[in-house]
Amino acid sequence: MAPYMSSPTRPSSNEVSSTPDQGKISFEAQPYAFSFDPTKTALVIIDMQRDFLLEAGFGYIQAGEAGVATVQATIQPTRAVLRAFRDSGLHVIHTREGHRPDLRDLPTTKLVRQARAPKSRHSMVIGDKGPMGRLLTRGEYGHDIIDELQPVSGEYVVDKPGKGSFFSTGLHQHLVDRGITYLIVAGVTVECCVTTTVREANDRGFDACILSDCTDGFVSTFKKASLDMIHFSEGLFGFVSSSPPLLAALSAYSARQINQPAAWDGSTDMDALKMAYASGLSPVAVVERVMENIKSGKASQPSTWISLTPHDELLRRAKMLEESGDTSLPLYGVPFAVKDNIDVAGMPTTAACRSFAYTPSESATVVTRLEAAGAIVIGKTNLDQFATGLVGTRSPYGACHCVFDDSRISGGSSSGSAVAVALGQVSFSLGTDTAGSGRIPAAFNGIVGLKPTKGTVSTRGVVPACATLDCVSFFARSLEDARTAWLAAKAFDAEDPYARSSLPLTALTNRALLCEDATYTFAVPPDNILESLLSPEYRRAFAKTEALLARLVGAEQVDFDFASYLAASDLVYKGSFVVERAVTLSSFTSSAANKASMLPVTAAIIDAAASIPGSKTFEDIYQAQRLTRLIERQFDRCDVLVLPTAPRHPTLREVEEDPLGPNLELGTFVSAVNILDLAAIAVPMGMVEGLPFGISLVGPAFREGVLLEVASRVQRLLSA
Amino acid sequence: MAPYMSSPTRPSSNEVSSTPDQGKISFEAQPYAFSFDPTKTALVIIDMQRDFLLEAGFGYIQAGEAGVATVQATIQPTRAVLRAFRDSGLHVIHTREGHRPDLRDLPTTKLVRQARAPKSRHSMVIGDKGPMGRLLTRGEYGHDIIDELQPVSGEYVVDKPGKGSFFSTGLHQHLVDRGITYLIVAGVTVECCVTTTVREANDRGFDACILSDCTDGFVSTFKKASLDMIHFSEGLFGFVSSSPPLLAALSAYSARQINQPAAWDGSTDMDALKMAYASGLSPVAVVERVMENIKSGKASQPSTWISLTPHDELLRRAKMLEESGDTSLPLYGVPFAVKDNIDVAGMPTTAACRSFAYTPSESATVVTRLEAAGAIVIGKTNLDQFATGLVGTRSPYGACHCVFDDSRISGGSSSGSAVAVALGQVSFSLGTDTAGSGRIPAAFNGIVGLKPTKGTVSTRGVVPACATLDCVSFFARSLEDARTAWLAAKAFDAEDPYARSSLPLTALTNRALLCEDATYTFAVPPDNILESLLSPEYRRAFAKTEALLARLVGAEQVDFDFASYLAASDLVYKGSFVVERAVTLSSFTSSAANKASMLPVTAAIIDAAASIPGSKTFEDIYQAQRLTRLIERQFDRCDVLVLPTAPRHPTLREVEEDPLGPNLELGTFVSAVNILDLAAIAVPMGMVEGLPFGISLVGPAFREGVLLEVASRVQRLLSA
Repeated sequence: MAPYMSSPTRPSSNEVSSTPDQGKISFEAQPYAFSFDPTKTALVIIDMQRDFLLEAGFGYIQAGEAGVATVQATIQPTRAVLRAFRDSGLHVIHTREGHRPDLRDLPTTKLVRQARAPKSRHSMVIGDKGPMGRLLTRGEYGHDIIDELQPVSGEYVVDKPGKGSFFSTGLHQHLVDRGITYLIVAGVTVECCVTTTVREANDRGFDACILSDCTDGFVSTFKKASLDMIHFSEGLFGFVSSSPPLLAALSAYSARQINQPAAWDGSTDMDALKMAYASGLSPVAVVERVMENIKSGKASQPSTWISLTPHDELLRRAKMLEESGDTSLPLYGVPFAVKDNIDVAGMPTTAACRSFAYTPSESATVVTRLEAAGAIVIGKTNLDQFATGLVGTRSPYGACHCVFDDSRISGGSSSGSAVAVALGQVSFSLGTDTAGSGRIPAAFNGIVGLKPTKGTVSTRGVVPACATLDCVSFFARSLEDARTAWLAAKAFDAEDPYARSSLPLTALTNRALLCEDATYTFAVPPDNILESLLSPEYRRAFAKTEALLARLVGAEQVDFDFASYLAASDLVYKGSFVVERAVTLSSFTSSAANKASMLPVTAAIIDAAASIPGSKTFEDIYQAQRLTRLIERQFDRCDVLVLPTAPRHPTLREVEEDPLGPNLELGTFVSAVNILDLAAIAVPMGMVEGLPFGISLVGPAFREGVLLEVASRVQRLLSA
Repeated sequence: MAPYMSSPTRPSSNEVSSTPDQGKISFEAQPYAFSFDPTKTALVIIDMQRDFLLEAGFGYIQAGEAGVATVQATIQPTRAVLRAFRDSGLHVIHTREGHRPDLRDLPTTKLVRQARAPKSRHSMVIGDKGPMGRLLTRGEYGHDIIDELQPVSGEYVVDKPGKGSFFSTGLHQHLVDRGITYLIVAGVTVECCVTTTVREANDRGFDACILSDCTDGFVSTFKKASLDMIHFSEGLFGFVSSSPPLLAALSAYSARQINQPAAWDGSTDMDALKMAYASGLSPVAVVERVMENIKSGKASQPSTWISLTPHDELLRRAKMLEESGDTSLPLYGVPFAVKDNIDVAGMPTTAACRSFAYTPSESATVVTRLEAAGAIVIGKTNLDQFATGLVGTRSPYGACHCVFDDSRISGGSSSGSAVAVALGQVSFSLGTDTAGSGRIPAAFNGIVGLKPTKGTVSTRGVVPACATLDCVSFFARSLEDARTAWLAAKAFDAEDPYARSSLPLTALTNRALLCEDATYTFAVPPDNILESLLSPEYRRAFAKTEALLARLVGAEQVDFDFASYLAASDLVYKGSFVVERAVTLSSFTSSAANKASMLPVTAAIIDAAASIPGSKTFEDIYQAQRLTRLIERQFDRCDVLVLPTAPRHPTLREVEEDPLGPNLELGTFVSAVNILDLAAIAVPMGMVEGLPFGISLVGPAFREGVLLEVASRVQRLLSA
């Protein structure tokens, strides 16, 4: 009866679904079929803990024998779905409700409200000792997941203090990091934690489908009402289905994923390795081949490696891994390189300065985490001395060069790490990135360089450059390999003073960018800036990128205050943040002999920095803060800033003749990123006149998942 | 049947309710009576928007005519409850579901899921133009609250993009700031936003009770199930009742609040003013009396004020306020003082340096906000020159002294602001607090000094001391008056580079401290530190505090790494953060004449700071970060650190003889707070040998509400 005006801006179902649906599968559900891309989907199994499912647990207090029997009926169907997800290689998440042993995350209301009811059946409360240990308390037997559904490696366990799985947990960030948009939900109890979690998920833009036979609760009449309220009004909170149609759809999907066992072709791409390992390849064979490749590659690119893991140590590690047999480790048998300003236990850390070298007894936290995920350190790679430089030539171990052209620089400072990946010697490598060192060499060698949010990958065991800005970065040949390495490394490290935890994301600043048909916004630098800063061939190449961007479905171009972005770049090398380099090296450079042993160009930079007064430092800190706030506001309207990674590709001779000029120029588009607390990914965009050309996608902190998603859409268009 | 072991640590209902229940009222509810303290309660009215309740809105699309009629039936009962809350002076919160006009906070799933259903009745989607404007879009007529329930001043409106009221909003912080623990919930729709909000509230430790006649939804069968799921299992998510028993309980409560109209006794306490204004007192009479008091107080304390608002301007403002008649403004007709390093339009800002003085055309943001809340600026108060000092004697306008003893210092740098409040001349005053300036003079004059979390009250229009550390602070004679002033001032200011928004609190780090019977933890400095740092009389006074703390119900004492806390203090005056003072004054001090016009002691401090090198600055920044992380971990186990505010109370003569020594000593317990990103409140704790003694409660950023709650419990014990 209300006389609505139809609006021209309303997205027709035609418009919103105009992105390719390939890869999506669907199964019947209420209110209508649930369509999902399995690679962007997680199975979320809620609270299948002994405390809720066994008779000696907390669930028994709540609901008695009948209630426990009801929820037990969900175990077998859930197990079947879990098996299907594992068989299809899809992501699995488990949640556990419970509290710290000191109960400091337990609200008083939760502790006492039920026990205070007249004639309460809550004769015991959370934290009390029952037959399976303290009730709903972390670390106790009863708190853990039932035997039938125990997590395996690579699956994520969310420990939550509430009914909802998002409050006070890392779940939201976990999903965004992985580009996960769809949730298949099972678990207990339906009226409590299951639907509370789905309601939370819906507010955060996720599409969830509850499997009705894989969930139940303690009051029989609540199940139908709980589920009806999820899908009523044409899907107000989400979808409801059951396991049989999902299993059928998944089995068809699995059948399409041809996993023909194939002889290993020697590729270190993670997918190739994974498939080969599944077919019985031994990590020993892989490391042997990697060492051969490195040996044979030495002629063309002699300065890549500073040191290699001793052969017997490498074999020992590969054998140990093989014996563990845990091929579900996310980086099982994946070979990687470590920039030589990052500690690996027992190997010298030189930072490309022989007199500085020391041999640490412990590995950097990031290396330890990657090894725990199954990866194998192949060796330590060359860099611009003390990671000072963006060229890759400032090293006593020799200059690296571009893998496509011996006369061009490799870029730096993470030169060897980029070259080793570009040559296919390793699957991925670690760089460091203070002012662009993890992105410039990616662009010059046609690979991906992921510079994550400051403080999210531990820098403990990394030689500091500018401690307030330093990041560990990741090189790989594909976006997905970079993501996999990064996610295995990412963790809050309480011992790293600059570590930042991934608190729950508190807002959605775009239309759930991770959904294929979302509308989002991007910006590119204005024409006049591009004209004045880029070489003619790079200008032409970036124009092609701009043309591609115009074809992105759902993407809208917006303005961006690019002048403020450029101003922030100037603070790093032209301003006083370079003082940090002098501070972190001060105990080394206080000896004249040490100073004399440095490359003249590095020594000069450190010297100049040491004379900057404290007042200038604070002026620059204020300026950085002002600019950070300005750029934050830009990103309130813009999801992704798209830039050329470098303005041009210098030759080795140029840099030899002028060690400072071209180096400074290379920072133009990359150096602002850490000052402004942004995340960035350098992405290869094809070739220009025989050399690789690359762009960078830049976005706010903690939004790497968004950058990776847009990058993959751009790459898909490029290869289309 | 399960053989539980009974545990001695289980809180019996006896133990948990051992705190005084006075002030609590209760009414019948399910699963049992809902007991609440009205002063810690908010009425939360969910989404009573035209878009959901009128026939031309979004609700009509969802549910048709019958659905809209059902929810309309909730308007009258909700209106009655709203009236009762307003009549009793209790807190009211309204929520509105909706989106930014650019829809960037609208998840794709929410935009398209319903419209995509086969034969969808969602012919229009959010953002489309209907008869009441764009659907569920902020700023549109249909998005606003229905006429019957329109908010009045002092009520909080939550604009939320989701179904839950906590996700992506400031609601959690709003409640914690006000010490609110209990929620009475009304609104629409019961199956959607109402119960989602109550589930979120429960996870965050709030006790909520839904009024069944004040809520309804679009599907008749959902209402009972929705409400049953809230209170089942002895109150799993909360309570359910209806408006009649609540109204009865509130009416009995109101009757007990005797509001006998009384002649105004001249007190500037906010409660006294509020009651007098309600009885017809005119703001003109108040400002006249304030001016008289200031005049007559001049003899005993001549250096309090640097300038006063001109008499006619004061009258103009008071009359304007009177004519507005909006006595519901939170600070209606409340007189306050402004430290003279904070701009008030048209009055000189001197920072206690005549040659520095300028007359701003705009007031500082904090002053503008307080005026908008109804407060009246009486004048500008004396301070240690450029807010450098903790003594209150470093001013060309004369030294302030303790209001209890002419021979003792007032403390500084916010000396005049503290004295004006202690003398009762104004209700509250603004100070600034970089290293203790908002707390030391509170302790020495027997009043409250609230130093809020850095960046939560705008410093735009404040003369910077150390821009990375500066805070605006609040003096008052009671905790509640300090809180009221602070809350009126608090707001994110996008133009202040150091402003921080109150994002939703993401974790509960204690057992819902705000509930009366919660257990929580506190720490005090170790004996040896107290012995060595405190004067004998202060040691004795603090021992009394320790004895009081031991009597706090539910409070447990824990250890604290006090050495790290003390180390952070040293960074402010002994370290390089003092360089900031030189930087922010550099354009002024670059003139020799200006330099010569400064007090020698201030000039010497600025001079010394100017010579500190940049390398030292970064060393201290690193140290501050390390210490911040260490202290963060301490506060993971400890809710409140309780300290003496000052180590002793120096005389004016002492400070004259040694301008630096005693000043430095006064920073011992207070100076670390901003470096470590903490919040603090200075609280008077009675008298010692004729002089006031004060303690400080220190806690993590954004936890002022917790500090205020514990402070009031300690004060209650003191006066018991």
